[in-house]
Amino acid sequence: MSITSYSQLENLFNRIYQLQHLASIAHWDMAAMMPSGGSQARGEALAEVSVMMNELISDARTGDLLQSARQDKLQLSDWQQANLREMHRLWLNATSISSELVKAKALAGSQCEHAWRTLRGDNNWQDFQPLLQSVIDLTIEESQQRADASSLAPYDALLNLYEPGQNSVALDVIFAQLVEFLPVFIQQVVDRQAGDTIIQPVGPFPVEAQRELGLTLMKKVGFNFKQGRLDVSHHPFCGGVAEDVRITTRYSEDNFSESLMGVLHETGHAKYEQGLPVDWLNQPVGSARGMGIHESQSLFQEMQIARSQPFLQFAAPIIQQFLDNEQTDSQCWSADNLYQLNNRVKPDFIRVNADEVTYPLHVILRYDIEKLLINEKLAVNDLPEIWDEKMQQYLGISTAGNYKDGCMQDIHWTDGSLGYFPTYTLGAMNAAQLYHAATHVIPDLKQQIAQGEFAALNQWQKEKVWSQGSFYTIDELMIYATGETLNPHYFLEHLKNRFKP
Amino acid sequence: MSITSYSQLENLFNRIYQLQHLASIAHWDMAAMMPSGGSQARGEALAEVSVMMNELISDARTGDLLQSARQDKLQLSDWQQANLREMHRLWLNATSISSELVKAKALAGSQCEHAWRTLRGDNNWQDFQPLLQSVIDLTIEESQQRADASSLAPYDALLNLYEPGQNSVALDVIFAQLVEFLPVFIQQVVDRQAGDTIIQPVGPFPVEAQRELGLTLMKKVGFNFKQGRLDVSHHPFCGGVAEDVRITTRYSEDNFSESLMGVLHETGHAKYEQGLPVDWLNQPVGSARGMGIHESQSLFQEMQIARSQPFLQFAAPIIQQFLDNEQTDSQCWSADNLYQLNNRVKPDFIRVNADEVTYPLHVILRYDIEKLLINEKLAVNDLPEIWDEKMQQYLGISTAGNYKDGCMQDIHWTDGSLGYFPTYTLGAMNAAQLYHAATHVIPDLKQQIAQGEFAALNQWQKEKVWSQGSFYTIDELMIYATGETLNPHYFLEHLKNRFKP
Repeated sequence: MSITSYSQLENLFNRIYQLQHLASIAHWDMAAMMPSGGSQARGEALAEVSVMMNELISDARTGDLLQSARQDKLQLSDWQQANLREMHRLWLNATSISSELVKAKALAGSQCEHAWRTLRGDNNWQDFQPLLQSVIDLTIEESQQRADASSLAPYDALLNLYEPGQNSVALDVIFAQLVEFLPVFIQQVVDRQAGDTIIQPVGPFPVEAQRELGLTLMKKVGFNFKQGRLDVSHHPFCGGVAEDVRITTRYSEDNFSESLMGVLHETGHAKYEQGLPVDWLNQPVGSARGMGIHESQSLFQEMQIARSQPFLQFAAPIIQQFLDNEQTDSQCWSADNLYQLNNRVKPDFIRVNADEVTYPLHVILRYDIEKLLINEKLAVNDLPEIWDEKMQQYLGISTAGNYKDGCMQDIHWTDGSLGYFPTYTLGAMNAAQLYHAATHVIPDLKQQIAQGEFAALNQWQKEKVWSQGSFYTIDELMIYATGETLNPHYFLEHLKNRFKP
Repeated sequence: MSITSYSQLENLFNRIYQLQHLASIAHWDMAAMMPSGGSQARGEALAEVSVMMNELISDARTGDLLQSARQDKLQLSDWQQANLREMHRLWLNATSISSELVKAKALAGSQCEHAWRTLRGDNNWQDFQPLLQSVIDLTIEESQQRADASSLAPYDALLNLYEPGQNSVALDVIFAQLVEFLPVFIQQVVDRQAGDTIIQPVGPFPVEAQRELGLTLMKKVGFNFKQGRLDVSHHPFCGGVAEDVRITTRYSEDNFSESLMGVLHETGHAKYEQGLPVDWLNQPVGSARGMGIHESQSLFQEMQIARSQPFLQFAAPIIQQFLDNEQTDSQCWSADNLYQLNNRVKPDFIRVNADEVTYPLHVILRYDIEKLLINEKLAVNDLPEIWDEKMQQYLGISTAGNYKDGCMQDIHWTDGSLGYFPTYTLGAMNAAQLYHAATHVIPDLKQQIAQGEFAALNQWQKEKVWSQGSFYTIDELMIYATGETLNPHYFLEHLKNRFKP
């Protein structure tokens, strides 16, 4: 009886997975291949399939099947039980808020995002503010409906969409340690780095050479090109499906480092997808374990590996081989110089351009404000002031009157994706903790990396993270992989080691 | 009441259209972009969405809605009535055969096609024959079930899947005229051409130059690059969606002409798609009017235009500009020489490589045999003998013992797509008739083509064919565009003019 219900649920989620496959490829195509005239039709096709997926999961029958399957779940295997838990979570996410609210938020979000694309460039806060207020009002309503359905606190109910099991009480404690440590540390690093002599590479670096370099290093670190591609899009991302992962980048002929590190970052996401449990890919338990773990894999590749001294020792001659030119002093291509180039610290306005040390403070600033918006009903009108206040407190710079480089810089709030920002820094902390655990299992890891050997490390990540899909909860996964739940200590130690002030 | 039923049908077919959009892009991606490791997952996703589309159209509720809407169809506009007619046709196609037969044929077809990919190369008729017999048996069963549901003759019921309204009694009469004329004509042309002096272009012609040439001529003849792309795939095709048409080609460095004419052929298909009625694209009435009309548009572009003397006069300097090299005698690039190069006639084994004059006989041979298989239950075992007999009769060459260049050469029968072949020659005849009609409306058409001016011609085709979608039946459309139903006279006249023996 319950096996039957469970089997029916597997069929249902398989169907959703197959639709998601087509939607993902269409999304990638839209960003990487589609001519401009195709956008309206594509938008309509993607909207319709999104409605269909939501109908499938929200159907009353799905709720009945879940109830029946959960009653007799002890007849299921461990993987099936974990799958059922994930099905239930997705069902709850899909059914916790009213369809009226879904529609209203989608509409307000789309209007706000659309306007933002112009208003940001114009630094036009006045026209943006009421649009954002509408989105925030609906997001508050959403947080309350989700809280009612889940017995989580309102802000935590949003956070759990991206980071299941996480809560703001725990996050407050963790982030407080970062806030205590980072501002002073940043000043020390900036002072120390002021004395460094860095040789700047001089472009132009041809796009084709940059592309070949990216492909070469992707291959070296273990991207499987039988199940994925590298292309160009305006905003780099990792998309496609686990069986065929599509990553993108964009090239600037002046600056090769941004694209190269971006490619390796997305390669980290891609290797996670490519390493997910093959037998479970079409089921919820087969998908990646939340955004914080996903970001941990990209930051593992980028921050723990690619920007490290040993990796740059290995990569320096390869980078030189592809990019050397007459304009650039050949000393530029030493591992030491590339290491310094790739690890400069400077407090600045824009989160997406931030270095590894200042980045968490950009995130915590947003997290602080999101909690105020949701829990304290902070008026959007007061956002610029509090943004400026916190920028001064955390990074010592002011955004007064500079909305476009202040509270208007991100797309996330325009469609009401509150609760997402923390996952970036959760990812950074998870990555440091995972790397530390790997060094215990592979004592000569640094030497292996310096020699361009990644097989043992990939094997360890695959066993401990990738192949586990969503079998474990996030806390369980971190314990399985590192012996303990998230501990910011490893991230702080990593920063101290890398940026020794 | 009936408006409500009709509206519900529009919603239903819109949903199917949106799923079809995603499936089409995924098909294109599979052929043009996808890495090899992605094929199993892609196949599963496409199979699932195909099942979903079939479920939507075959749902009992759809039949009820159609019945109700048809009862009160006089309340509908002309376009809505035509749309309802097309909906009913699609519903009938989807529901006329049992789901057991659909499954059995899909399985047998996939096994036969898969085996064919190896067995053809090995000239292994013995192992192929029983697999094909199974597919033919199921196709006979299909033709009977479709005949029962439609009151068409069994073979016509298959033919109507691709060419609605067509029947083999009419086709027999038309094809008889071609069979009477062509064999003698071919011999005369071959004899006459034997005396021609042709200068052969000498490669290699770099792929990038061929691509740029193709893009240039696509643009000149009116392909809209805001709503489409040109890429590479193993088998050239026209795919994507009307709002975003994806055509493909493949390049050989030795032979530029094959790819160039292929690109212009697919451009003909693409311009039809791009010119379909924008207000009706998401409905059955907004789609192209059957395969024979679709092929008429590609052959219009390729045979009526691109291989003509005036077009090559216009294109010759452009071709030379992109492809000239030291190896090739510059006389090669004259319009006269290019014309001769692109209009050589030679009876040969392979349909897809056939010239314009021998091609119809390849088709009629297959049409004859298809009727024998379906109507006379001709045993597959007897296929090679009758193939050889007809090749000798029509083209004067023998395929005895040469299965791979004989009855094993095509993919169409391996999955039971009987009834499709005639559409190629229907397309050729329609194209000649349409071109003839265009010369009456645009008296200086030849001069316009020679000057690379295609605006008036495209406008005429758009008005008469493209923008009509499936509003008219095929016969009505030909009358609307040319004043009469299909008449093979124009095709025969075209051949006489072009190939004057």
